Amino acid sequence: MVRSEETKSFRFNHTMYRVKDPQKSLQFYQEVLGMELIDKAEFSSFTLYFLAFDHSGGSDDVSAKKLQRFKREGVLELTHNHGTESDASFAGYASGNDEPGKGYGHIAITVDDVQAACARFEKLGVPFKKRLTDGMMKNIAFIKDPDGYWVEILPNTYEV
Amino acid sequence: MVRSEETKSFRFNHTMYRVKDPQKSLQFYQEVLGMELIDKAEFSSFTLYFLAFDHSGGSDDVSAKKLQRFKREGVLELTHNHGTESDASFAGYASGNDEPGKGYGHIAITVDDVQAACARFEKLGVPFKKRLTDGMMKNIAFIKDPDGYWVEILPNTYEV
Repeated sequence: MVRSEETKSFRFNHTMYRVKDPQKSLQFYQEVLGMELIDKAEFSSFTLYFLAFDHSGGSDDVSAKKLQRFKREGVLELTHNHGTESDASFAGYASGNDEPGKGYGHIAITVDDVQAACARFEKLGVPFKKRLTDGMMKNIAFIKDPDGYWVEILPNTYEV
Repeated sequence: MVRSEETKSFRFNHTMYRVKDPQKSLQFYQEVLGMELIDKAEFSSFTLYFLAFDHSGGSDDVSAKKLQRFKREGVLELTHNHGTESDASFAGYASGNDEPGKGYGHIAITVDDVQAACARFEKLGVPFKKRLTDGMMKNIAFIKDPDGYWVEILPNTYEV
């Protein structure tokens, strides 16, 4: 399909959700999933964290990555409203998969080896919504991030 | 940053949300935003629609795009649970930005010319959550899709 001139430059740059405790979330997205923190923007009442998978092959050029933040796809923006991490009355955010508030579903990570990826998540103590062995689809798993958001793990080959 | 062997193949493949009426949603994501329907999966009670911006420069190789569905980032998966489009008692999905159910925020599209993009959305009658002239950030707009999900429109240069 030839894209129209009007939308030719458009890119699906990022997906945003709110997180209660950025330390827990950063640990999850960086250490468990292997994303990189490419940018951070602090405001008086909230902070934005931008994460993405590095496809440069291991470049350490941080400013180049920051500049590329708007030129690429696959960025995850985490919004931290200051104070939620230590507010005992804060109920937490909805994952989007339960009533009320159902609508948003999940993000998904494709991987070379879904068995190895899930074995590692088990070893790291990551909670699962659906293990590979659960349900009908044996090549797809769902893990949960620190806020309970679902992250689908699936092979990067066409098997579904 | 050198990525660990264990997460080296990981990609942020897609973001999923539920939609009430796929005809309205497909019209919005294809015609208004310029995404392409790269795949579709029909099940007995629901259908999945996979959309993405074509960065191939206008290839018509549909099967290649379908095969690339899991190899790329920036895919939007829309889930249609059959019947919602004509069910008068169906209340609709939460955008994630209001209580209860707050958590998920938005997806974002970066563009070359944010003024031109927004002028076109106005002309098409797209509802705005925030026009460029509203609020503090004059280079960022938010439009709403047919279910009320927010779509941020922002420049692809580093200005924020």
